[in-house]
Amino acid sequence: MSDSTTHNKPGVSAGTSEKKHFTFAAPPKQIPLSSGALLGPVSMTYETMGELNSSKTNAILITHALSGDSHMAGYYPGDAKPGWWDIMVGPGKGIDTDKYFVICANILGGCMGSTGPSSINPATDKAYGLDFPVVTLADMVAAQKLLLDHLGIERLLAVIGGSLGGMQVLEWSLRYPDMLAAAIPLATTMRHTALAIAFNEVGRQAIMADPNWNKGDYYTAAKGPDLGLAVARMIGHVTYLSDEAMRQKFGRRLQDKTDFSFNIDVDFQVESYLHHQGSKFVERFDANSFLYITKAADYFDIKNQHGAGSTVAAFAKAKAKFLVVSFSSDWLYPTYQSREMVRAMKKNGMDVSFCEINADCGHDAFLLPNKRLSNLIKGFLERVYREER
Amino acid sequence: MSDSTTHNKPGVSAGTSEKKHFTFAAPPKQIPLSSGALLGPVSMTYETMGELNSSKTNAILITHALSGDSHMAGYYPGDAKPGWWDIMVGPGKGIDTDKYFVICANILGGCMGSTGPSSINPATDKAYGLDFPVVTLADMVAAQKLLLDHLGIERLLAVIGGSLGGMQVLEWSLRYPDMLAAAIPLATTMRHTALAIAFNEVGRQAIMADPNWNKGDYYTAAKGPDLGLAVARMIGHVTYLSDEAMRQKFGRRLQDKTDFSFNIDVDFQVESYLHHQGSKFVERFDANSFLYITKAADYFDIKNQHGAGSTVAAFAKAKAKFLVVSFSSDWLYPTYQSREMVRAMKKNGMDVSFCEINADCGHDAFLLPNKRLSNLIKGFLERVYREER
Repeated sequence: MSDSTTHNKPGVSAGTSEKKHFTFAAPPKQIPLSSGALLGPVSMTYETMGELNSSKTNAILITHALSGDSHMAGYYPGDAKPGWWDIMVGPGKGIDTDKYFVICANILGGCMGSTGPSSINPATDKAYGLDFPVVTLADMVAAQKLLLDHLGIERLLAVIGGSLGGMQVLEWSLRYPDMLAAAIPLATTMRHTALAIAFNEVGRQAIMADPNWNKGDYYTAAKGPDLGLAVARMIGHVTYLSDEAMRQKFGRRLQDKTDFSFNIDVDFQVESYLHHQGSKFVERFDANSFLYITKAADYFDIKNQHGAGSTVAAFAKAKAKFLVVSFSSDWLYPTYQSREMVRAMKKNGMDVSFCEINADCGHDAFLLPNKRLSNLIKGFLERVYREER
Repeated sequence: MSDSTTHNKPGVSAGTSEKKHFTFAAPPKQIPLSSGALLGPVSMTYETMGELNSSKTNAILITHALSGDSHMAGYYPGDAKPGWWDIMVGPGKGIDTDKYFVICANILGGCMGSTGPSSINPATDKAYGLDFPVVTLADMVAAQKLLLDHLGIERLLAVIGGSLGGMQVLEWSLRYPDMLAAAIPLATTMRHTALAIAFNEVGRQAIMADPNWNKGDYYTAAKGPDLGLAVARMIGHVTYLSDEAMRQKFGRRLQDKTDFSFNIDVDFQVESYLHHQGSKFVERFDANSFLYITKAADYFDIKNQHGAGSTVAAFAKAKAKFLVVSFSSDWLYPTYQSREMVRAMKKNGMDVSFCEINADCGHDAFLLPNKRLSNLIKGFLERVYREER
């Protein structure tokens, strides 16, 4: 077991953020996965902000979405952009690092420092590629639990996350119900609809159609499946925005021209935006991780995995106080899916607050500045913290 | 100018359908396109059903959508499936071939017998590929007008089509307002939103990311961009269905298995369905045609191309009686877009009927059996036919 600080850089806007690396299940130990496979060693890269109080009652775990990582907030030296949730996490912000000790770890299966398909397979000394076992949301959460054990944290004040991060929140609340006082799932779902699976599958097919994907074995090649991964990311981006958000952001405006090009190049700003998102993503993300993480999201199904076919039965295990938030223009995980989970919680007599936030910006709304969301989370955390003491 | 019957096969369910081929602008003649380019020769493959009456007042033009062709109804010998709109076109059906003479031509830029990027470029004796000029909805409609001139039809009883076919209907009503008594645009829009452009662009990128696309020059290669085209088609298919339709059709049901495979293969039925749609499409469709036709759809913009920025001004030219139909679960061209065109028509004092049909099946609803839709079209055509005499 090792714990080494690889970064310790002062944050500019968000206070100090610390990046650490933790390896468990060091050889010959392995951790069992949902599939029955064993995996080890397992490393996790995580960041912490704020200070753990002496009674260890102020720890919050933030769980990231598909393309996120452990760098939740603050700046690294030289970075033009802060971590992915800088609008929410920091001194005085919705998740106030002056009060709380906040942890965020790159998920299992990811490519930002935690063990995933691009990690070295000790059996071959080569990157796993498709030899990496399929991991589930339950496996991701179990790995986070091991990290908390390592940090000596027995109970979290809250687990908070949006989208795939929200699925982790739900899984936490059912898998380790005694370990969290509060759960805040944002813009998420209890299980993917056929539509959500379909979008993921088209993205996976785009990657696998790229000959440079080479059945997942591209880590020593000159070029990986960049074009396929870019297309997959573009598909994702379309689902993250809303009709209205795109109308406001782009409409039918042309890109650097006053009339149509009359060729098959880019004409519209929205096309240029998607190209930009696609190529930016390729620089920082591993195509196999995209395959594995989207598959985990598709597999996730609280009703069948925790409730033997009943959503109400699934939540019978939960003990956390919930704040559930959906966004009116999110068509990937529409509000009706959040309402369904809230109904199941209420049937169990749980302490649950629900809010649908009116926002034009689609699924991505939880990542964008929103005073209402910040205040909701802030107030809810304060209440739970007060009630816990 | 040539007119040769290449097929003359008895329809089984839908009466006789006849496939013909017509070449105009034979060398050295060329037709001018919206872009300013010239194109020639131009061929069109079309089918007719029913008989043109002596006064030539019973002709109806059907305009097809992206993946359609001239084979609107009936069976060719040996075919397991009839033409694409067999549910609507035939003796006694919504568009009754016992009463009307019905014409459907493959669009300009297509790949089902009309001139498109896979046609031979007379300048090089090779397939055009990307040397094919960009064509617009206006160009497609202008080519259909030349076909009608050739057939000696000076006025249509109606132009009817859904989706991209609906755009052609709108274009017809504004470009040749004196040539049609009625216009029936179904499940369509006056112009693509950023969202619709985004989906098209991701599909185009999927094709162009395929190395076998080879900048459009693949017609003599062993293999074309099949994988890219399949991904593009899958993206399209997701947009044609609705959340609800997918839930009913697939839900989270697994494909030929009782539990997850725990690998990156197909697990869910919806994945298998998309794969099937993708590979079926590749067998019959040309990737470059996909690029050109989607680009034409993205360029289409009644407001700016006919109304100098005003939708109301655009429809000032129209003289046809309109039946506009939208479908409640169509999220590609949602009902609000049809309402907007109906409002503009009404402000011009036009004779317009509008109906939003409650259907769970998404954008594709106009292609599926729907008694309400058949009756609406039938009744509307009868009224217009009566009023024309």
